[in-house]
Amino acid sequence: MSITTDTAAHPALETLRERMLGAAAIGSSASVLHWDQETKMPPEGVEPRGRQLAALARIYHEQVTSAEVGDLISECEACNDLMADETSDAAATIRRLRTDYDRETCIPVDLVEEEATLGSQAQHNWAEARRNADFSQFQPWLEKVVALLRRKADCYGWAEGGEPWDALADGYEPGCTAAWVESVFTPLRSRLQTLLQRIQGSTTPPSNDFNEVRLPIDAQEAFVREVAEAIGFDFRRGRMDVSTHPFCTGFHPRDVRITTRFHEDNVNDALGSTMHECGHAIYEQGLRQDEAGLPLGSAVSLGIHESQSRLWENQVGRSRQFWQWCRPVLVKHFGDAVAGFDVDTLYRSVNIVRPDFIRVEADEATYNMHIMIRFELERALMTGDLNVADVPDAWAQRYRDYLDIEVPDDARGCLQDVHWSMVSMGYFPTYTLGNLYSAQFFDAATREIPNLEDGFADGEFDRLRSWLNEKIHRQGRRYLPADLCEVVTGAPLCADHLMSYLEGKYGEIYGL
Amino acid sequence: MSITTDTAAHPALETLRERMLGAAAIGSSASVLHWDQETKMPPEGVEPRGRQLAALARIYHEQVTSAEVGDLISECEACNDLMADETSDAAATIRRLRTDYDRETCIPVDLVEEEATLGSQAQHNWAEARRNADFSQFQPWLEKVVALLRRKADCYGWAEGGEPWDALADGYEPGCTAAWVESVFTPLRSRLQTLLQRIQGSTTPPSNDFNEVRLPIDAQEAFVREVAEAIGFDFRRGRMDVSTHPFCTGFHPRDVRITTRFHEDNVNDALGSTMHECGHAIYEQGLRQDEAGLPLGSAVSLGIHESQSRLWENQVGRSRQFWQWCRPVLVKHFGDAVAGFDVDTLYRSVNIVRPDFIRVEADEATYNMHIMIRFELERALMTGDLNVADVPDAWAQRYRDYLDIEVPDDARGCLQDVHWSMVSMGYFPTYTLGNLYSAQFFDAATREIPNLEDGFADGEFDRLRSWLNEKIHRQGRRYLPADLCEVVTGAPLCADHLMSYLEGKYGEIYGL
Repeated sequence: MSITTDTAAHPALETLRERMLGAAAIGSSASVLHWDQETKMPPEGVEPRGRQLAALARIYHEQVTSAEVGDLISECEACNDLMADETSDAAATIRRLRTDYDRETCIPVDLVEEEATLGSQAQHNWAEARRNADFSQFQPWLEKVVALLRRKADCYGWAEGGEPWDALADGYEPGCTAAWVESVFTPLRSRLQTLLQRIQGSTTPPSNDFNEVRLPIDAQEAFVREVAEAIGFDFRRGRMDVSTHPFCTGFHPRDVRITTRFHEDNVNDALGSTMHECGHAIYEQGLRQDEAGLPLGSAVSLGIHESQSRLWENQVGRSRQFWQWCRPVLVKHFGDAVAGFDVDTLYRSVNIVRPDFIRVEADEATYNMHIMIRFELERALMTGDLNVADVPDAWAQRYRDYLDIEVPDDARGCLQDVHWSMVSMGYFPTYTLGNLYSAQFFDAATREIPNLEDGFADGEFDRLRSWLNEKIHRQGRRYLPADLCEVVTGAPLCADHLMSYLEGKYGEIYGL
Repeated sequence: MSITTDTAAHPALETLRERMLGAAAIGSSASVLHWDQETKMPPEGVEPRGRQLAALARIYHEQVTSAEVGDLISECEACNDLMADETSDAAATIRRLRTDYDRETCIPVDLVEEEATLGSQAQHNWAEARRNADFSQFQPWLEKVVALLRRKADCYGWAEGGEPWDALADGYEPGCTAAWVESVFTPLRSRLQTLLQRIQGSTTPPSNDFNEVRLPIDAQEAFVREVAEAIGFDFRRGRMDVSTHPFCTGFHPRDVRITTRFHEDNVNDALGSTMHECGHAIYEQGLRQDEAGLPLGSAVSLGIHESQSRLWENQVGRSRQFWQWCRPVLVKHFGDAVAGFDVDTLYRSVNIVRPDFIRVEADEATYNMHIMIRFELERALMTGDLNVADVPDAWAQRYRDYLDIEVPDDARGCLQDVHWSMVSMGYFPTYTLGNLYSAQFFDAATREIPNLEDGFADGEFDRLRSWLNEKIHRQGRRYLPADLCEVVTGAPLCADHLMSYLEGKYGEIYGL
């Protein structure tokens, strides 16, 4: 795509890269400590771990906002030799470092520390409030969170015609605005509602029997490990552990960790979680090693990251062809307990749609409704159109409108997610953007790779992984995420691909 | 022992403590990464991990040698209020921080980086040379190591009448000199040689049968875990994993990790390794939490650390009373496979003495001979009395003289240990100092705690742990290690306690 500029000939760029690699080493060290905290750390270790992470965060912030780094970026920008070819690695790197620097230096150190302190208090109080299913306990903390995030948004600023939410979302999905999200979500919501109504009226829903078979955890672990290897997670450059909430973290393309979880009566949850995290991990393992820790060797956005996890979890893992390959693997690990389920039954079992209250347990169709509700509420909280005190009512009303269900209590309502207590808004939409991107990318892959899906039946997952690697993983942060979508698929992001995919699949399964 | 000075009333001390806590958080973060590297990291992760650790080491060094820290120490030293009471926590803290600061700032940053680079190359070449059992491959690297360590010793300097080795040893065992080590080791060697000759001539050596019973790894793990809990390792504040070379690392008294290892045909190795590392861990878990990361909440020296591991491994774990308690635990976990061994047989089995080439597999008696040989050689390398090229011959000659065995090759000779390739000399004697301290501490404990050893038969290990905690763990770095020994036992370190213990035990077992 472009010839790498010889950085040695440009001492400012060379020094800048070294400084950023140093900061990246601190950042990834913190990631190791986070991973350890979630998977291995003894219970009493929480407090000292918090102090280690705070020390690393402070050093990271100092390093990436140092005057030296600012001067080096300016020096590179002034070098015609580096910037003349806009498509060069060097120019792309410097552009991204400039954006990062300007964004990081917007925020006074005091606010960084205030945010860290509030986050730890708010999370503690959120957990307590959720246990008691009592929003009023969390309300004062959410008020502090909203106030702080408004101040933070003011620091960042936003484009003319935009709004405070944009300033926050930009940190997760560069270039993303509320207006753009709304323009993509609105047609999605209307088609989804129609589809959900038709599914609800179906007279031939799939049976849930497979999802309730009890299977031993040891065998589940061996099973999902075989699937992970088959779709391309490289265990020489990663490992798999267990945690309450599955996640993926990459310290470097050569060391990427995933976690999954196991319940005796839900092998499908373990499989879905594992394939989801493998999708994230295949992205991280596929990043350019020669640019690791630098913009061209980093993931471009949370939305694109989620597209990779969703694509393997859903477009691959919930396809009929995948189950043609997977059924013998399943039988090998679990024997008679599963031998009675044929491919069609398995395929239908993993594609059940059922509106419910809990986002993280939602199916492919209803999931996006959960996201839209959160997006609308946090956008209104940031503009001030919604008061914190009114969140539970607004939440319940939207669940009625969009999913036709009655929220039973705050714990299963507006207290279910950790994000807001982490002083984070603007994050949620990246989940649905991920779903949309995954469908659009998969459409493009299907056009470009002959008989792609039929290959899944033979365990042929390499062609898809290579295609994703070339088109997406190895691009790093060269493009903004929305631009990357256009480069890869030839069109801007839209809801059509996801909706056609869902309408086609559920139309057949539910006989619509 | 002393009343804690109110640090809030002394802003310089308060700031100094904060700076040192920040540096300690970086240092303990590096320890988490080391632990991960040895226990969990995927194979390809080595190279990026090296860069993370180098970044953390650089920051740690910058922080502890900063001019600000130097100024703060001087400011505290000038404050009569803080220093007047020499026994106060504040005065002890400031004294140790001064020593650390002066020592750290002796070494130019260039030498720190040179050492890190040489260490990684030398270790690589040492591993290769050991694989090939060929010292000549390692010789040029050991020459570089010796040259660098001489320069480093010159930077530190040493007391009048001392020698270069002292400057290095002081980093592991503050106050330790070669002359002092020699004065302690010389009588030890002569009594040990006499004892070993008598053991060699015994006509009633213990049977090795128990040590060769094959026992499943799962059951071994459950067994050593139960023993670890019984002697006082707190799993809420730590964990146990597996690694090739067992080790203990403490990030904070609330998070202390040990590793052990398992061989089907050697449960005694797993038990000994576990109790050894538990001894280290009980020290780390027993440090003062309110001073964690600061001198009074840190271990005093490697020798004292080793005394804690050896005490639990040997004085406790190889005692007859311990096996009275342990035999039923053993039978519970392994059933018929071990039911035929009575307490006396078990006790004798774990106390077999057999001169051999390998230090880490040595018994309690011969172990110290391995250490003395290394001490004599590295001392001579540092003064220049021994050339690197002559190390294999000098090594072989001493194994003939001290242990009456012929070293078969370099791999089982002077290439067996990693220490020198880690650019480290002055470390080895701390192992034997640990053995000497453990015997002397145990004698004092036996005098002060009624029926201490008889209690082991009932699984009563708490009284010993509490005694060690009060006398040693909670002292942190208040005293120099040799002074701590006098405070705790009433006498300077000497070989009598260890030798009486060994002569008594082996006299009975071997019928001498």
